[in-house]
Amino acid sequence: MSQGPFRSAGIATVAIVGGGLIGGAWAAFFLSRGLAVRVHDPRPDAEVAIRPIIEQALADLAQLSSLPTIPPAALQFCAELEGAVGPADYVQENAPEVLELKQALLARIDEIAAADVLIGSSTSSLRATDLQRDCGHPERVLVAHPFNPPHLVPLVELVRGDKTASEAQEAAYAWFERLGKAPIRVAKEARGHVANRMSSALWREAVHIVAEGIASVEDVDRAIRFGPGLRWAVDGPHMLYHLGGGAGGMAAYLDHLGPAQEARWAELGAPALDGRTREMLVAGVADEAKGRTISTLAAARDRRLIAVLQALDETP
Amino acid sequence: MSQGPFRSAGIATVAIVGGGLIGGAWAAFFLSRGLAVRVHDPRPDAEVAIRPIIEQALADLAQLSSLPTIPPAALQFCAELEGAVGPADYVQENAPEVLELKQALLARIDEIAAADVLIGSSTSSLRATDLQRDCGHPERVLVAHPFNPPHLVPLVELVRGDKTASEAQEAAYAWFERLGKAPIRVAKEARGHVANRMSSALWREAVHIVAEGIASVEDVDRAIRFGPGLRWAVDGPHMLYHLGGGAGGMAAYLDHLGPAQEARWAELGAPALDGRTREMLVAGVADEAKGRTISTLAAARDRRLIAVLQALDETP
Repeated sequence: MSQGPFRSAGIATVAIVGGGLIGGAWAAFFLSRGLAVRVHDPRPDAEVAIRPIIEQALADLAQLSSLPTIPPAALQFCAELEGAVGPADYVQENAPEVLELKQALLARIDEIAAADVLIGSSTSSLRATDLQRDCGHPERVLVAHPFNPPHLVPLVELVRGDKTASEAQEAAYAWFERLGKAPIRVAKEARGHVANRMSSALWREAVHIVAEGIASVEDVDRAIRFGPGLRWAVDGPHMLYHLGGGAGGMAAYLDHLGPAQEARWAELGAPALDGRTREMLVAGVADEAKGRTISTLAAARDRRLIAVLQALDETP
Repeated sequence: MSQGPFRSAGIATVAIVGGGLIGGAWAAFFLSRGLAVRVHDPRPDAEVAIRPIIEQALADLAQLSSLPTIPPAALQFCAELEGAVGPADYVQENAPEVLELKQALLARIDEIAAADVLIGSSTSSLRATDLQRDCGHPERVLVAHPFNPPHLVPLVELVRGDKTASEAQEAAYAWFERLGKAPIRVAKEARGHVANRMSSALWREAVHIVAEGIASVEDVDRAIRFGPGLRWAVDGPHMLYHLGGGAGGMAAYLDHLGPAQEARWAELGAPALDGRTREMLVAGVADEAKGRTISTLAAARDRRLIAVLQALDETP
């Protein structure tokens, strides 16, 4: 898989372009894998803003597995794009989700980077085909979309644009897999890629249930967290229905319960995020938060997420 | 909450009516909580069929927490319904999902059980209003729907029918919470209650993604299991978007990304489980299974589920 013309073995240096929460988490992840990281962000205070993000993410990662010694020189902040991208064996772009901005930035990265260097974009909402439009070597430009928080969640969605070489997707797949990520191949561009489409589908029904007065925000969250959410941490939805079919697997499931699923699908809601629904959601999460601040809640989420990842790591 | 006219404190004996996989798992759960369990199932070989289910579930539960000594007399199989329900302080009904059958059975249970005994149905697809129709004391009949496997997954959805007393729902809530389950109050009857509606919504999009060739069955499953599924094991969808809004929480999330969600909702799929889709799903899970049998896969799922539950139990 890594025999293509793109660099995926022997990568030593990664460029992180755009260093907000996503870029900082990526930087920490690559550092934790023993790689040299060169960060470029156009903000004048970039280093001051990003260092604490990287340090917190490294502290999280250290709870998951023992980290290599990271020499201070492994992390460089570069005032100019050339300084970050020039020496890089891989580039991860994390600029704001504005198409024109990313197109121009990727064109510049593409000019600087050696022709066999893969360029992955963290975009959650834009298409690789559009992003690569102004690049001289569009065949090595692809979407490499992480899931938040990117240093902890293994998923990386690899999406080709019309001009991305399939070998580039394969090379990125092989590399991310070797780093311990869980890459997937998205075969066709679609808004939200794969995981966020399913998240949106689930949330649409979660909003409908609240808007219709079927259950409260807190009870909807409890239903997922103490119910199917636990199973989705250990198996995907197709596999779970395969197991739900008993000895006959998916075929038996579809025979016995396919019609019941289709009946349920026909009754799923299509809510709007109008003023009334908005008020119900905002008031509902406030009830659920019971006075806890966002940062307290987020720290608890990450603490539990680390515990789950540790447990699964020890239980293949 | 437990001051109503329904028994929820001091419960010593539980009747399990209908002893397949669900009834067996419930029986093991109640035994693990130090309760006496009386099982009735009309099949002549019921005891032979159910004992191994109960024993496997108890072995699973023993991995989660140390169990009390369970004297052999704590588990009784009763050939007649009266023998199980007569002495019970709570009744959990788990008969096949056939309305007329459950209506007749619940009417008989209702005649036998003391008037302050709660009667919960494990139904996933029927309405409490229909189930309680022929009962003399419908006010204590409600849906108490577990999530598979019921001895491990904490969620219990409590749904009132038109004639169920709100005090009955509150009494059941208090009791299940005291037992260490995670009950929720469903305020309005809806097909699939709450958790299965959201599961169906997610799966509809998962099927769409496969049917449209956006990603394979295995990659869809990887996307959930190594992506949002990990987060849904630690927080519900509303809370996660609240945290996704940064310091401004849900209100900020809706301001910034509400329109993007609505755009994604508009593009979600509405697949049919037709012959072609069915073939793609069956072949896709076969690829993903890589020769592993259903029982191997299910054992791995439960092993990982136990590991996740243990980790979360230690990380509040």
